[in-house]
Amino acid sequence: MKALCYQGPKRIEYGQTADPVLSADTDAIVAMTSCAICGSDLHIYHGSPFSQDTGYCVGHEAVGEIVEVGKAVRRLKVGEKVMLSAAVGCGQCVRCLAGDIARCERGGAQCYGLSSALQGCQAEAIRIPFADFNASPIPDGLSEDQGLMLTDNLPTAYLGCRNADIGPGKTVTVIGLGPIGLMAVEIAQVLGAARVFAVDLVPGRREIAKGLGATALDPATAMQEIAAATGGRMSDCVVEAVGADATIQLGLMLAGRGGTVSAIGVNTNMDFRFPMAMAFGKSLTFRIALCSVQMYWPELIPLVRAGRLHPERFISHRLSLSEGARAYELTDTKKDGALKMVMTP
Amino acid sequence: MKALCYQGPKRIEYGQTADPVLSADTDAIVAMTSCAICGSDLHIYHGSPFSQDTGYCVGHEAVGEIVEVGKAVRRLKVGEKVMLSAAVGCGQCVRCLAGDIARCERGGAQCYGLSSALQGCQAEAIRIPFADFNASPIPDGLSEDQGLMLTDNLPTAYLGCRNADIGPGKTVTVIGLGPIGLMAVEIAQVLGAARVFAVDLVPGRREIAKGLGATALDPATAMQEIAAATGGRMSDCVVEAVGADATIQLGLMLAGRGGTVSAIGVNTNMDFRFPMAMAFGKSLTFRIALCSVQMYWPELIPLVRAGRLHPERFISHRLSLSEGARAYELTDTKKDGALKMVMTP
Amino acid sequence: MKALCYQGPKRIEYGQTADPVLSADTDAIVAMTSCAICGSDLHIYHGSPFSQDTGYCVGHEAVGEIVEVGKAVRRLKVGEKVMLSAAVGCGQCVRCLAGDIARCERGGAQCYGLSSALQGCQAEAIRIPFADFNASPIPDGLSEDQGLMLTDNLPTAYLGCRNADIGPGKTVTVIGLGPIGLMAVEIAQVLGAARVFAVDLVPGRREIAKGLGATALDPATAMQEIAAATGGRMSDCVVEAVGADATIQLGLMLAGRGGTVSAIGVNTNMDFRFPMAMAFGKSLTFRIALCSVQMYWPELIPLVRAGRLHPERFISHRLSLSEGARAYELTDTKKDGALKMVMTP
Amino acid sequence: MKALCYQGPKRIEYGQTADPVLSADTDAIVAMTSCAICGSDLHIYHGSPFSQDTGYCVGHEAVGEIVEVGKAVRRLKVGEKVMLSAAVGCGQCVRCLAGDIARCERGGAQCYGLSSALQGCQAEAIRIPFADFNASPIPDGLSEDQGLMLTDNLPTAYLGCRNADIGPGKTVTVIGLGPIGLMAVEIAQVLGAARVFAVDLVPGRREIAKGLGATALDPATAMQEIAAATGGRMSDCVVEAVGADATIQLGLMLAGRGGTVSAIGVNTNMDFRFPMAMAFGKSLTFRIALCSVQMYWPELIPLVRAGRLHPERFISHRLSLSEGARAYELTDTKKDGALKMVMTP
Repeated sequence: MKALCYQGPKRIEYGQTADPVLSADTDAIVAMTSCAICGSDLHIYHGSPFSQDTGYCVGHEAVGEIVEVGKAVRRLKVGEKVMLSAAVGCGQCVRCLAGDIARCERGGAQCYGLSSALQGCQAEAIRIPFADFNASPIPDGLSEDQGLMLTDNLPTAYLGCRNADIGPGKTVTVIGLGPIGLMAVEIAQVLGAARVFAVDLVPGRREIAKGLGATALDPATAMQEIAAATGGRMSDCVVEAVGADATIQLGLMLAGRGGTVSAIGVNTNMDFRFPMAMAFGKSLTFRIALCSVQMYWPELIPLVRAGRLHPERFISHRLSLSEGARAYELTDTKKDGALKMVMTP
Repeated sequence: MKALCYQGPKRIEYGQTADPVLSADTDAIVAMTSCAICGSDLHIYHGSPFSQDTGYCVGHEAVGEIVEVGKAVRRLKVGEKVMLSAAVGCGQCVRCLAGDIARCERGGAQCYGLSSALQGCQAEAIRIPFADFNASPIPDGLSEDQGLMLTDNLPTAYLGCRNADIGPGKTVTVIGLGPIGLMAVEIAQVLGAARVFAVDLVPGRREIAKGLGATALDPATAMQEIAAATGGRMSDCVVEAVGADATIQLGLMLAGRGGTVSAIGVNTNMDFRFPMAMAFGKSLTFRIALCSVQMYWPELIPLVRAGRLHPERFISHRLSLSEGARAYELTDTKKDGALKMVMTP
Repeated sequence: MKALCYQGPKRIEYGQTADPVLSADTDAIVAMTSCAICGSDLHIYHGSPFSQDTGYCVGHEAVGEIVEVGKAVRRLKVGEKVMLSAAVGCGQCVRCLAGDIARCERGGAQCYGLSSALQGCQAEAIRIPFADFNASPIPDGLSEDQGLMLTDNLPTAYLGCRNADIGPGKTVTVIGLGPIGLMAVEIAQVLGAARVFAVDLVPGRREIAKGLGATALDPATAMQEIAAATGGRMSDCVVEAVGADATIQLGLMLAGRGGTVSAIGVNTNMDFRFPMAMAFGKSLTFRIALCSVQMYWPELIPLVRAGRLHPERFISHRLSLSEGARAYELTDTKKDGALKMVMTP
Repeated sequence: MKALCYQGPKRIEYGQTADPVLSADTDAIVAMTSCAICGSDLHIYHGSPFSQDTGYCVGHEAVGEIVEVGKAVRRLKVGEKVMLSAAVGCGQCVRCLAGDIARCERGGAQCYGLSSALQGCQAEAIRIPFADFNASPIPDGLSEDQGLMLTDNLPTAYLGCRNADIGPGKTVTVIGLGPIGLMAVEIAQVLGAARVFAVDLVPGRREIAKGLGATALDPATAMQEIAAATGGRMSDCVVEAVGADATIQLGLMLAGRGGTVSAIGVNTNMDFRFPMAMAFGKSLTFRIALCSVQMYWPELIPLVRAGRLHPERFISHRLSLSEGARAYELTDTKKDGALKMVMTP
C-alpha cells in the first residue's frame, strides 16, 4: 500500500510499504478515508525524539472503513465507518477500565506512528489493536471531518482545559493558537469562562481567535495587557498548547494567585527552568498530560452534535496523501494560513 | 415611609409604615431605588406559611443607596449604590466563613420580609443587618437591573443548576419557566449542557425558552418527547423551578439512570409522595436547597459582565411601588406576559 | 448440580438443577468454592419482587475456580481462583467504560439470581457472562473470605459512604448494623469521619459497632442523643443500610443542615412519604443507588490488603450449601448473632 | 516587653522591645502563653529572604489570652484564651469570604514576623489585625498545645495532603519528617491512604514515622524500595515537606503515572530544574502552596477532638522564651531529637 513514512529529519515521504495484517484476533484492519497531521507529528518531522527507527508509517489521526476483523472483535463490523483513538489501550486492565487509557498497564501509552512498533495512520490501511476499544463508529449526526477531529485534537484540547480547572466565571488564557489552541478557546467558553485571552505570534491565528470571542494578544504584550484588563489578578486558568519552554514559562507568568497552568504540548526538556519561588508565591497548580482520547468522547460527542463545538472549522487545507511532504511543510512553516491538514488516499 | 405590607391572604397593600432605624452598629440603612417580586413572595401572598405576623413589609430583592451606616460598618459608605443579598448571615461564624450563608449559625437562614422580625425590601428604606456582609456595591460594568437580579433570582437559578450536577455534554431539563427557570436555561448552557429541554404550561414562556436555544415542551408530552429525543436515556440533570408537588414528581420521572434532580422552589409538603422504587432503579440523586446568595457572586458577576448571562432580559414590567397590589396580581396570574416585576419608589 | 433455588415465599430449597453451560464465547463457568447470602436476598425470600419466575438458582455473591472459558475470554484462565461481581455489565458500552456498570447499556442492571434470566451463585457452578469483565482473580494478599466480601457487600457499603459525602472531620450516622452497615462504620473512618453514630434495634449488633469505635444508639433515642452530642447540628452524612421506609425516614430526620442522606438498601415503595418541607429547610441531598461493584475494586483492594478494612470480620456462620434453608432463616430472624452467612458446596 | 528579635543571620535574640498597641479598632492585643518555632522560621534564621529589616519580632505560631480589643471587635472578649492563625486576612474581601485567606486582597499573604510590618508572635504580647477573623477561642475539648499546632503546622500539613490528591486506597509518600511531615503521615491515613512511605535522612525521625504506621525509608534507597514495593507503579501522591530543591526533585521521581506532587516547604529558587519530559511522560500534577490556615479549622478541629490526629505528639522540647536562641539552634541542627520547640514567656 501507499503511506507516508519517516525517513529522517524533514523527510516524511510518500511511498510503498507493506500492507497491514491482523496480528491478534482482537485486531481490525481499517481502510483510511481521511487522516490528519497533528502538531506533535512535527516532533517526528524535525527528527524523531521517540525512537531510532526509520521507514515506519507516521500519523495517529484517521477515520476509515473496517475491512477486516479478528475473530474476537465483537462491536465493530466490516463495512462500518469508524474513528480511531490516538490513545491505544487494552480496554481490560484496571487503568483502562477507569478510563485512563494513557496509563494502560498492557501496551500503555501506545500511539500510532511513533516507531515501527505500531505503524501510523497516514497510510491507505491501518491495523488497530484491541479494535473494539480503540475505534468506534462515527456517531450519528457527526460528519467524517468531525469524527477525524475526535481522534486526538478535540479530546486533547478538552483535557487541556479540564486540567486548567476552567469553570464558570473564570478568566482563561490560551497560549498557542494552532488547531488545538483554537479548539481550547471554544471549549473554554463551553466550560463557562467569563473571558478568554488568546495568545499567538501569528496575526492570522489571533484573528481567528477573535472571531471565536476571545481577546487576542501578542506574546510580547500579553503580560501587561492581561494585568491591565484584570486589575492585576491575571488568569485563573492557563492552557499552554505549544509545548515549548518559552510558552510554558509565559503560562506560569500569566497565571494569577491560586491559578492553574495546564500544558498539553509535547515537551522533551529534562531541565526546564521552573520559577519555583514565583509558583510558591502564587500557590500554583501545574499539570502536563497526555490525553486518554476515548475517555472524553462521551462528553464531547453531544457537544459537537449540538453545535456547541465546531472543531472541523480549523481544517485549513485538504490534500491527497501523495502530497504529504507539502502538508508537513505547511504545518511546519504555518504558511498560507495553515492550521489543520486533512489528507485523503 | 411608604412600603408594601402583608395584611393577610391576597392583601399586600401599599401604605405608611415606620422608618427603619439602626439597631446595631453593624447595620446600614438603604434607600431603595428598585425592588422586585420573587416567585417565593407568592407563598406569602397566598397566606404566609412563614409566620403568623401581619403588617410587616414584604420582599427580599432590592438595590438602593446607602443613607446611614453603623459605627462598625467598614466597607460600605454613605452614598454608595448597593445590591442586597436575600440571604442574611453574620459573616463571622464557621458556616458563613465557608460561604454557606443559608446555614449561618447566628441569625441563620434569615431573609427579609418573611415576618416582622426582619422587615422586607419592597419599601422606601431598608435596614440591613451585618451590612458589610449582606450588601455589596453594584459591581463595575453592571447595570442596576443586573444588580437587582443578583440579589436572589440569578444565584438561586445558578445553585439549582449546580445542584443538578450540570456539566459539559449533559442533557438538561428545566421545569417551570418563570424568571428563575428561564435564567436556569441560560446558565445550563454556560455550564456546558449539550441540550436543554424547557417545560412549562404557558406557551409564551415556552417561546422565550426556545429563543434561548432550548427545546420547549408542554408538561403533558414532555415524558414522551424527551424519551424519543434521547433514545430513552432521558435527562442527566433536572432543575425544578416551581416547588409544586406535581412538578417535582415530573422531575423525578424525567431524570434518566444516574441522573440528578434539583428542586429550588419552596415546597411546604411534609408528606410528599416520593417514588422510592423508581429512584432506586435509576440510582437518583435528589437535592432541594435554599440559596446562599453572596456565595455565588464571585462566579456570576464576571459572567454577567462578560455578557454570557442576561438575567435582566426577564424583567417584563416596571411599576411604581404604589402599584404593588397589581404587580403581585400579575405575578400570580402570569397574565400580560408577566415574568419579573420591578418596582421603584 | 446442586443449588439453592427459589420455589416461592420462604421456600429457598436445596436441590438438583441443570448444570450451567457456555452460551456465548465471552462466558466462563466457575465452580463455586464459597458463596454468601446478601441482605437483599431476603427480598426474594419473602416473595420475590423482581420476577414471577420460580425454580431458578438464587444468590449473587460467590468466589470459585474457573473450570471452562469461552473462546473470546482472554484474561481469565482455567484453574484460576476468582471473585465475581454482583453487578454484571458488558464492559464495552459507554457506561461500562466509564465504570458505571449498574447502568450498562447492554444487559444493564443485570445481577445473578433475580430470575431465571441469569442463574444465581448459591450453586455448585455458575455461568459468568462477559467473564473477563465480571470476574477477577482474587488479588494477591487477600483471603478467599475477603474476596467474597468484595463481590457485593464491601463495594455496596463503600458506595453508600461515598454517596453520603463522607469526608475528613464529618459527623456520620449509619442506620442498620447488618454486615453492610458494619462495613460502612469501618469505611466511614477510613474516609476521615471524626465521629460515627451507629443505630440498630439489636443490642448485639450495637456492641459490634461500639467495638469498631462508633457511638452505638437505639433508634428510639437516636434523635435526642445525636442532637445532644452535636449541639443540635445533627449528622453531616447519613448512610441508611436497611431499605425500610422507617429507616429512610429516620435518616432524613438525623441529617443536619446541608447534610446528605444515602440509602443503599432495596426499597420498593412507589409512594414513600418524603418530608419535603423539612428537606428544603435543611437543604438536603438524598441519594439512593445500586452499586457498580467492579468500579470500586481499585480503591478497596489496597485498603483490605493494608488491613485498613476487615470485611471478613462480619462472617458469623459457615454452613454447607445443603443447609441453605437454615442459613436464610438465620439471616431473616437475625437469631444466634447472625450477620453474614458463608456457604460451601 | 520581652521578645525574640531578628538581628541578622543566626542572630535571633531575646531582648526588650516596644509593647504592641491597637492600631485599628478591629485589632486585639494578646498576651502570649505559648508559642512555637516553625520550620519556615529557619529561612529567617539563616538570613531573611523576606525583607531587609532587622530588629523586628519573629514567629507566627502562638496561643494566648486576649488583653485588649478594639471597638469593632465583636467575637473575641478580654480574658479569652485564643489561638492565632499564621495566615492573616481581612475576612471581608472576595478571597477571604471564599476561605482563601492566603490570597486576601487587602493585606493578603500577610503573616506575622516576616518584617517589621507585622511583628511576630515569639513575644510576650502580640497585636492581631482583624482579630475576629485571625484568632479564635481554643475549641472545647482541645488542649493549649493542640491549639498551638492549629496555628500553622497542622493546617499546612493538611493542605499539603489535600493538594497531593490523597484519597481512599492511595499509595502516599511523605518526604521530610519534621513536625509537618510527621503530621502529614498521620493525616494521609485519615484521608484513606492504603500505604504511606515516609522518607528522611534522620534515623530517629524515621523511627517515629514507623511508629505511626508508615514504611520508613532513607532517601538514598527510596526510589528502589518504592519501586519494588509497588511493582513499579510508584506513589500516587507525594507530599514534599522540606522545600529544598533536592527533595522536590526526589518527589517528582517518586510519583507514579498520573500522580500528584504537593510541595509545602518554602522554596525561593527562581530557576528550579524541572524534569518536564518526565512529568509529561507520567502526566503529573504539581502543586506548591501557602496555607490559608483558618480555612481548614472546621475540618481539623473535630479530628483532633476525636483523637484521630495528635499533632501535639511532635512537641519535643519546652523552653522559656529567654532560651530562644537555643531553641532555634536545636531546630536548625535537629540535635537532641529536636522536632517542635514550644516556648513560654
